[in-house]
Amino acid sequence: MMSKIVDVITEYYLIPLEEELGDAKHGIHTHFELPIVTIKLEDGSFGVGYTYTGGVGGRSICTMIEHDLKPFLIGKDASCIEKLWEEMIWKIHYVGRGGIASFAISAIDIALWDIRARKANEPLYKLLGGFKNSTKCYAGAIDLNFSKEKLLNNIQRYLDSGFKAVKIKLGQETLEEDMDRVAAVRELIGPDTVFMVDANMKWSIENAIKAAKQLKKYNVLWLEEPTIPDDYDGYRRISSEGGLAIAAGENFHTVYEFKNMIERGNIDFVQPDASNIGGITGWLKIANLAYVHNLQVCTHGMQELHVSLMSAMQHQSYLEVHSFPIDKYTKRPLVIENGRAIAPETPGTGVEFDWDLIKQYKANF
Amino acid sequence: MMSKIVDVITEYYLIPLEEELGDAKHGIHTHFELPIVTIKLEDGSFGVGYTYTGGVGGRSICTMIEHDLKPFLIGKDASCIEKLWEEMIWKIHYVGRGGIASFAISAIDIALWDIRARKANEPLYKLLGGFKNSTKCYAGAIDLNFSKEKLLNNIQRYLDSGFKAVKIKLGQETLEEDMDRVAAVRELIGPDTVFMVDANMKWSIENAIKAAKQLKKYNVLWLEEPTIPDDYDGYRRISSEGGLAIAAGENFHTVYEFKNMIERGNIDFVQPDASNIGGITGWLKIANLAYVHNLQVCTHGMQELHVSLMSAMQHQSYLEVHSFPIDKYTKRPLVIENGRAIAPETPGTGVEFDWDLIKQYKANF
Ligand SMILES: [Mg+2]
Ligand SMILES: [Mg+2]
Repeated sequence: MMSKIVDVITEYYLIPLEEELGDAKHGIHTHFELPIVTIKLEDGSFGVGYTYTGGVGGRSICTMIEHDLKPFLIGKDASCIEKLWEEMIWKIHYVGRGGIASFAISAIDIALWDIRARKANEPLYKLLGGFKNSTKCYAGAIDLNFSKEKLLNNIQRYLDSGFKAVKIKLGQETLEEDMDRVAAVRELIGPDTVFMVDANMKWSIENAIKAAKQLKKYNVLWLEEPTIPDDYDGYRRISSEGGLAIAAGENFHTVYEFKNMIERGNIDFVQPDASNIGGITGWLKIANLAYVHNLQVCTHGMQELHVSLMSAMQHQSYLEVHSFPIDKYTKRPLVIENGRAIAPETPGTGVEFDWDLIKQYKANF
Repeated sequence: MMSKIVDVITEYYLIPLEEELGDAKHGIHTHFELPIVTIKLEDGSFGVGYTYTGGVGGRSICTMIEHDLKPFLIGKDASCIEKLWEEMIWKIHYVGRGGIASFAISAIDIALWDIRARKANEPLYKLLGGFKNSTKCYAGAIDLNFSKEKLLNNIQRYLDSGFKAVKIKLGQETLEEDMDRVAAVRELIGPDTVFMVDANMKWSIENAIKAAKQLKKYNVLWLEEPTIPDDYDGYRRISSEGGLAIAAGENFHTVYEFKNMIERGNIDFVQPDASNIGGITGWLKIANLAYVHNLQVCTHGMQELHVSLMSAMQHQSYLEVHSFPIDKYTKRPLVIENGRAIAPETPGTGVEFDWDLIKQYKANF
């Protein structure tokens, strides 16, 4: 029996952040965008998917779904997700291969997986293998613009909430300022809390190597995105000459970019984001790529969904608990127990939006 | 004195093709999309830029310009094009790095160059160096779906119009069919007409090498896009083991993709398209990259604009005269003399749309 798609409904939400958040290359964020897609089947069942951005591109994503992907999907069999994924990629290939297209496909793909898991009457983490029902996690704000005092207060808040791993942003005017903040955070959290840092692509290769060498004494688990995501050979130099484990992935929007960065860039922590790598189908391809390269998989953002993906994986590293609080607008904000994030047991993705709460942020696209 | 931008007007046109056109990976085209951007300055002057697609993504491009780039551009100095180009890239970086974002930036960048050239009272080819005022060119249809008879009639039409170089599409069900068409075209055009072929990413590496070997005896100048644009190492194998010059570029939408393909993929003919590589600013970066690699530069589509870019270059190869006839909707359709395409002498880009002619195709985005 065919699970025929009869409608694809796209909605755009623009949600204000509680405070301004800044990083080294994206500047100040005041809102996040939340495109949500509902796919309806002939039998009346449905699935919900979504993506998010830091404030730009959301309307363009919705427009692509509405005008270029919806007409393709209507009448198709929702069960054949991997086939639809591949066909969507080729349908929009000339204007695609990353960027807006990857976000648009992601939202649709997540909706299709929601349907698949609901139909199987399984929570997502089990449908994907169920290696565990929880994952290690860390909290990190977009805190480059925070004063040192505010930074430390925020980290203390994470520790008080039960987190056993934290991340801060680097990329201040001078490396001295960065190191001063790193030293202060390490002193606050003590030697046993896991500590990561993220430069959001700010540095040249030479600056990144210098920073990595100075960071070593603070026992940093990884240095994230030291330079632009396109410079695979530069990443290899930073990794080998800097002597620190390197993490990257939030800016790779095709499977080939991950392949290049793993094979040429020598990254140690692989961070796909299901909201921009082609949904759950894309995320699984990258998780598998990490697996065959003997690397651990991590995530970026979207913790309310990624908790199920990470929990399912044998080679799980750390889930990012991001400061775009999408989970606060769902019926099950992220659950942390003993420093671990717990996967939802609900059939489907486990991400059900609180429609009453978000309706005030709905806008035209 | 600052050339202050006071308005950015985005229009969307959906223009039907005279006949259905098909290639190996994009399927059948029935329309092309033409997003047009007009940038107005405080002093009343203006410039017009545009991009195009094969039928998908155009509305998403317009939406990005309208909602994400226009707000950034208003109030900025139109003279500082390279600064604006870099800042636009970073403004939308997270949802960018190719795809829709590159098309959106392209349309804006071309409008800014139109302003720069009008202000200088120079035709574009001179403003960019004016090495010649014309360029070699070839005609090629999206003709994979044409019967052999229609294919040959179309090639004859090109010869009758004065073209001295032609290209056809490959990627039929079997390589035998492709070779049969190649043999028939070579017989029709004689030994002296330059002949290129284009597989539009259809083949595996193994198939591409096999095809390249069989194509050699037909004296083909280049084999274009034998496989997916992401497989740099695959391109290197096709180039070295197939023994034919390889061309690629229409699907690279960042400068880094070109760098990888030139350095790792060993392509011989570099084909940037100003409509999707970030406009004239992006195209010049790739032309320069080709120059320092001792390679010749070519183009893809958009002949009415590219004729000026190619004419300006010392290391010019062949201009593609594409079968999306954008130039028919301008006041100066492409001029061919003695088999060469002639650059316009008008100040500006030389691309002035025939607004009366295109208004019937205007649509909402
Ligand atoms: Mg990060
Ligand atoms: Mg081509």
